[in-house]
Amino acid sequence: MNNYPDIELDIEKAGDFLDLQPSRLTDLIEKRNLLQNWDEYDNMYRFEGHAGGIPSGSVLIDNGSSFKLIRGFPKIRRAMLLEPSIKVNFSGIDSVVVEEKMNGYNVRVVEYDDELIAFTRSGHVCPYTTERIQNFLERDFFRDNPDIVVYGEMVGPENPYVQKSVYNVESLDFFVFDMRYKDTGDALSVFRRREMAEVYGLKQVMLFGNFPLEKAAEKVKEIIKAIGKEGREGVMIKDPDMVLQPVKYTCSESNCSDLQHAFRFYNESGKDFLFSRVVREGFQTHEWDENEEEFHKRCLRLGKSMLGPMRDTIAHVSGGERISDDFSIRVKDREVIDRFITYLERFGLDLLFDTPHKSGNEYIINIRKINKSTSDKTQALLEGQLWS
Amino acid sequence: MNNYPDIELDIEKAGDFLDLQPSRLTDLIEKRNLLQNWDEYDNMYRFEGHAGGIPSGSVLIDNGSSFKLIRGFPKIRRAMLLEPSIKVNFSGIDSVVVEEKMNGYNVRVVEYDDELIAFTRSGHVCPYTTERIQNFLERDFFRDNPDIVVYGEMVGPENPYVQKSVYNVESLDFFVFDMRYKDTGDALSVFRRREMAEVYGLKQVMLFGNFPLEKAAEKVKEIIKAIGKEGREGVMIKDPDMVLQPVKYTCSESNCSDLQHAFRFYNESGKDFLFSRVVREGFQTHEWDENEEEFHKRCLRLGKSMLGPMRDTIAHVSGGERISDDFSIRVKDREVIDRFITYLERFGLDLLFDTPHKSGNEYIINIRKINKSTSDKTQALLEGQLWS
Repeated sequence: MNNYPDIELDIEKAGDFLDLQPSRLTDLIEKRNLLQNWDEYDNMYRFEGHAGGIPSGSVLIDNGSSFKLIRGFPKIRRAMLLEPSIKVNFSGIDSVVVEEKMNGYNVRVVEYDDELIAFTRSGHVCPYTTERIQNFLERDFFRDNPDIVVYGEMVGPENPYVQKSVYNVESLDFFVFDMRYKDTGDALSVFRRREMAEVYGLKQVMLFGNFPLEKAAEKVKEIIKAIGKEGREGVMIKDPDMVLQPVKYTCSESNCSDLQHAFRFYNESGKDFLFSRVVREGFQTHEWDENEEEFHKRCLRLGKSMLGPMRDTIAHVSGGERISDDFSIRVKDREVIDRFITYLERFGLDLLFDTPHKSGNEYIINIRKINKSTSDKTQALLEGQLWS
Repeated sequence: MNNYPDIELDIEKAGDFLDLQPSRLTDLIEKRNLLQNWDEYDNMYRFEGHAGGIPSGSVLIDNGSSFKLIRGFPKIRRAMLLEPSIKVNFSGIDSVVVEEKMNGYNVRVVEYDDELIAFTRSGHVCPYTTERIQNFLERDFFRDNPDIVVYGEMVGPENPYVQKSVYNVESLDFFVFDMRYKDTGDALSVFRRREMAEVYGLKQVMLFGNFPLEKAAEKVKEIIKAIGKEGREGVMIKDPDMVLQPVKYTCSESNCSDLQHAFRFYNESGKDFLFSRVVREGFQTHEWDENEEEFHKRCLRLGKSMLGPMRDTIAHVSGGERISDDFSIRVKDREVIDRFITYLERFGLDLLFDTPHKSGNEYIINIRKINKSTSDKTQALLEGQLWS
């Protein structure tokens, strides 16, 4: 055993399995690139950041007698200009598949110890998501395919991370967008994955079509314009065989809606987050060769998406309120509520929550994430503090 | 003498003068917080960053037999909300003076060795500015007041840093906004400084008035609205006695014009620069309690200030051009041109310049600063590179 009281991992055996020198593994633990999960999931270890070639968010499961590695979800790169990006990144193939990129949060699902488990992007086990997928997903798929990890988006309004009402989801639901083999990390082809999801009754992201390479940019533009109006996020452009890496592209309305959310909490918002969304708008207006009226609308949308929520925040704080991000969750098993709150508090979140109330055979609880930094900064400025 | 070949400073004597231990001074040199100026100004040393209580941009002049310290210009803090900021920051006094904050670059002028010298904010001696002030400024002031440093803004279109045509300046001119004693760094009162500038025929920034504290926010709002329309930058709000620290406040049009300039070179623009300008707009619309029409205009102005220049940049690069920042300078002494170009190139700037042409008794030269990063990034994206 090792000397790190917070990591109960057999370094020799884990190193053997991962094909890493024990000293390298010890090094990852020391640098906190390999961390142990909490509570009943403490036989699961997360890789974080640069971890010796193992993707960030990967999870090592220690079964006692053997190990399993659930690979982190690969970072998907973004097209700024559709036409050249599609041409260059999918050169050598004839067509690309366009599927919907839904706006929720990304989870990986596996069956372990007779239970489905949901890992977040970072490799944490989210107790709320894990409880929910027990109810959404048929087990047969996982029993028949123990070697496959299912990747999907958790979407809907009763969502601790991204609340969206545009997907006809009443509470929360899971939509498959990828399936990969545990051992190799290789993805199933798009059509094989869609077929399997269909056969096993798993919901999946919308398929817009399989388009010849030279028509794809134009098709994506049409799709993006249409779904943007509905408040949907964007698309993933994929090699049907999933050999080449997918590329993402998003709607202007979705970029602006991200900004709108971020600027309510302006003092906590990442500056890269802001900058990259503005830059996307610049490239989209160029590529679509917009006329002055369309350009005017885009500029107004962008400006409003920043100043509108800031104006509201300042008015709220000026009126004596604190700024918070409010959401509700819904569970069958009431005990999950406490575990989920503990889980969020471990990330340093400042939470307020109501008493759960019953709705049918489920419990609903309203949770408020307090945004102390923005509330405090706004209050200080209202009291005459200078900016810097 | 010391062991640092690039610093020819007598550490013992300089330490004595600055009241710093020689070891502390050696430490500042090692950490490059104290740097030697170039060429004929190599008896002048700049303090940069955290330098043992000495403000960044301060200049130590070694006369051989004695030293002089020209203090760095103190950082001026910014009001986000006029009403509370004025009340809190000027509590205890009856009125505040409002002067114009001009949009140019900030220089400190002293006489040394029978010549006027212009230090930039960082403490460099700018050869162009130094040549120019010989022509703008009467010497009498400096001969009669060798203990005073004059702070002013270099403003106008023939400007290597900030080209503005809104001040009725044909080429470049110098406007005094502060005078401070070399020894103590204490400022002259506003009225004493204005009187002295007047007596000696030095141009100075516009005085809007001396307003009772309780009326000042409303007055500043009126001034800001009026000068904003003309494309002027903003105001400085000052304690008439210059005991309390001044506060700055700027026009929305000027914030947006900054963004407009920055987004031409979007890949080089600081994200904090962008963010802070957006936040200013949010607070101004709140404080001025704007109606929907005014708010709409502000949002549009903000959005356009980012997307307009980006759209132009992408179109230029797409048309085969490189993005550059073009300006011209005008000098009497032709030899200054080469020295100025060498000076800019030392900062790592990539420059192209035309052959100087004569205009009256002066030479004009057009200079082009090449923005390689934005040109290259835009070109790469146009060729299908993904964002990240």
